[in-house]
Amino acid sequence: MPTLVLVRHGQSQWNLENRFTGWVDVDLSAQGEAEADRAGALLAETGLQFDRVFTSVLTRAIRTANIALARAGQLWIPMVKDWRLNERHYGGLTGLNKAETAERHGEEQVKVWRRSYDVPPPPLAPGGEYDFARDRRYAGAPIPDTESLKTTLDRVLPYWASDIAPALAKGETLLIAAHGNSLRAIVKHLFGVPDSEIVGVEIPTGNPLLIELDAALKPVAARYLDADRAQPLPAI
Amino acid sequence: MPTLVLVRHGQSQWNLENRFTGWVDVDLSAQGEAEADRAGALLAETGLQFDRVFTSVLTRAIRTANIALARAGQLWIPMVKDWRLNERHYGGLTGLNKAETAERHGEEQVKVWRRSYDVPPPPLAPGGEYDFARDRRYAGAPIPDTESLKTTLDRVLPYWASDIAPALAKGETLLIAAHGNSLRAIVKHLFGVPDSEIVGVEIPTGNPLLIELDAALKPVAARYLDADRAQPLPAI
Repeated sequence: MPTLVLVRHGQSQWNLENRFTGWVDVDLSAQGEAEADRAGALLAETGLQFDRVFTSVLTRAIRTANIALARAGQLWIPMVKDWRLNERHYGGLTGLNKAETAERHGEEQVKVWRRSYDVPPPPLAPGGEYDFARDRRYAGAPIPDTESLKTTLDRVLPYWASDIAPALAKGETLLIAAHGNSLRAIVKHLFGVPDSEIVGVEIPTGNPLLIELDAALKPVAARYLDADRAQPLPAI
Repeated sequence: MPTLVLVRHGQSQWNLENRFTGWVDVDLSAQGEAEADRAGALLAETGLQFDRVFTSVLTRAIRTANIALARAGQLWIPMVKDWRLNERHYGGLTGLNKAETAERHGEEQVKVWRRSYDVPPPPLAPGGEYDFARDRRYAGAPIPDTESLKTTLDRVLPYWASDIAPALAKGETLLIAAHGNSLRAIVKHLFGVPDSEIVGVEIPTGNPLLIELDAALKPVAARYLDADRAQPLPAI
């Protein structure tokens, strides 16, 4: 039976500083490393044998996968890294402190950008400190200059369909180590969560979400491995 | 121009205990982690932009690659892991302390196994603690039960030809993080080292060996990035 585990990376340096991170390649904090290690211990307890791990091209997700897999004795499995599993691109908010952003744009506007389904922040200006178009890892890719949750889905789900779903359809057991919003995209798709409800779905950091699927890749069971730190899951 | 960097993993737990490791999946020691980090700093200084990293399916090599690449800000590059880059398989010596082995088999015999080109140790008995045939990572692979340096080459070089050389021929810049003997195999092939001399070629741990190649993949220049810890290189 196809089996999928989603794990959201733990605390990064910028989570600590409360800045909009998005595509900035910030590393895990020491606490984030500990969260990844704990996730690996929980994976090891399940006895799951992974066939492959998918992750973004951002260090905090890749290191979460590596730390967790090393803890579970499975660092040797194939790893696929793709920008389409990146965090939501925060456009012109990238790098800003959340309090400063509220002062500049108003609390209400920031809430709309953070909590609406389809309103993107202003685009990231080219040529600045965070001009990802100049980053070699995105060479040739049709990368955005800002994203809503909706447009995040628009690049996660084609990748799901082309690369992840076929591996699951073969019966593989997969790990995906990624970000709050790229994982929301997958959860929305798998559980059929309405647009209006998906922003309310919080996936805790470092708490592996184990999803068993049927042959049509519909969830038949889902649970967080750390029950004490679980959040409500959408109905199956 | 195709560019290749070879890096040998640093100290492992069993290097510390002076045991024959081979395919046993022993982790880096704290010193080994520091060696990998130092290798990454040296790579960063060169400004090299890697297209891909190849490594074995053994944790100590994978972690060496990951630590070094993270240090160089290139953890996001594609990584390929393959058992054919593993350390030489030490057969029935696997797991034995080197002093005990000398007592049991005689100093001279152990020297032959360690220093000859084509004499393998006795095969690893199936069903014991180190029966790699039961290890999922080798499922379906024609794995050996012992290896000489020569038979190590016999599985490294076909992989070089099928997977690594084509990437170099396209002009890629590659990192290979591997083991003393799998790297010897590559050095022997590239520099045309005679059978009788290759066991005398020592590749220092954690000291990246930068090799520039021509279009026919012949070395045109080679140097260790840490000149103070260099070993003699074969003539070009």
